[in-house]
Amino acid sequence: MYVLHYAPDNASLIIRLALDELRLPYRTALVDRRVRAQDSPAYRALNPAGLIPTLETPDGPISETGAILVWLADRHGGGLFPAVDAPDRARALKWLFFMANTAHADLRQVFYPHLYVTDEGRAGHAALARARMIRSFGILDQAAAAAPALFDPPSILSIYVAAMMRWSQLYPPDDCDWFHPEDFPALGRLATELEKRPCVTALCVAEGMTPRPFTRPAPPSPPEGAAL
Amino acid sequence: MYVLHYAPDNASLIIRLALDELRLPYRTALVDRRVRAQDSPAYRALNPAGLIPTLETPDGPISETGAILVWLADRHGGGLFPAVDAPDRARALKWLFFMANTAHADLRQVFYPHLYVTDEGRAGHAALARARMIRSFGILDQAAAAAPALFDPPSILSIYVAAMMRWSQLYPPDDCDWFHPEDFPALGRLATELEKRPCVTALCVAEGMTPRPFTRPAPPSPPEGAAL
Repeated sequence: MYVLHYAPDNASLIIRLALDELRLPYRTALVDRRVRAQDSPAYRALNPAGLIPTLETPDGPISETGAILVWLADRHGGGLFPAVDAPDRARALKWLFFMANTAHADLRQVFYPHLYVTDEGRAGHAALARARMIRSFGILDQAAAAAPALFDPPSILSIYVAAMMRWSQLYPPDDCDWFHPEDFPALGRLATELEKRPCVTALCVAEGMTPRPFTRPAPPSPPEGAAL
Repeated sequence: MYVLHYAPDNASLIIRLALDELRLPYRTALVDRRVRAQDSPAYRALNPAGLIPTLETPDGPISETGAILVWLADRHGGGLFPAVDAPDRARALKWLFFMANTAHADLRQVFYPHLYVTDEGRAGHAALARARMIRSFGILDQAAAAAPALFDPPSILSIYVAAMMRWSQLYPPDDCDWFHPEDFPALGRLATELEKRPCVTALCVAEGMTPRPFTRPAPPSPPEGAAL
């Protein structure tokens, strides 16, 4: 059985949704950010980079959201991602990597600026990071509009981008009015469709989120752990 | 036949090495950075993100270095990356995504700081970005030492990390004494082994690099185009 090392409202929610969509059995193990458990020797043994999530599998632990997604989709089928020999595979990989190495990497800069810049550069850094994210959401909105078969829920591309839309409306908590989903209609439609799926209902219960977690998000009240 | 849209000493060199290792026919098309051809409508039609490389394939254009690598390896076999059903697949994907979304994303911050921070934050930003890169090289050094079967040349993991080692010794051109490969012995061994392969000799000719481009790099003198 899989073990998902998670923290509420962290990138682990993307893996939770994929596992539920694929109807795979798993249990969760909280990485308690309140005591910085992601830096503990036990967690670092699973993932030396110290990032959440990690999925324990019969083939060993896997980290990196994009890696886990494509591995699960390839291993279990289920229609969340084009198969290796499918003509759409190339485009799907391109957008998955774009989400991981451009959009998600930039989101981390928006949320954790102290890792990237010292105080005197904070304002300029925040403005640039947000502008890059808006540009990336625009690129993804056009891609989703042009290739609905690739992006439509419950694809892993829809799950990944919906999570980023949620976080962009909530974080950083003291300054989160920089992303407006109505500017990205194709992504908004994806997120709305995704919210109708049972996996999202299960996520909201498990991680203490209110309904419509992607299109009308509110800060979570998780039953255990903390988002930050 | 594949068409590799490239600029000398850009991430496209990683794809060139993979194509040559797989003995696949392709032709190259210069993206001339001297006239910012990566921003031209023609190139943006291939890759709306405007990043180099793009590989034109029978299944359409693919961008994102990691996406192209895994797609080529899966489509053509050749032993550069574990197959979908191989037990090592999970670990290989993890390190490929780590390279793409952490190491390579941070390298872009080292090389193109103006995209990430305004002048007053430049010094702090550079110090933090370099420290993150050194940490990532350390994580990859340990991973390569622990799993030689996964990393040993000509794996796509060895190609990707060797390219990042090269760039870290050359860029930014006016301030490039921040990375010392002797601090990462497993990666140094990988890079030295990779340099013995014919694909690297071909790269040096095609992109105007001196021998030992990963362990003793010098600025390139490309026959066409420019690195920056």
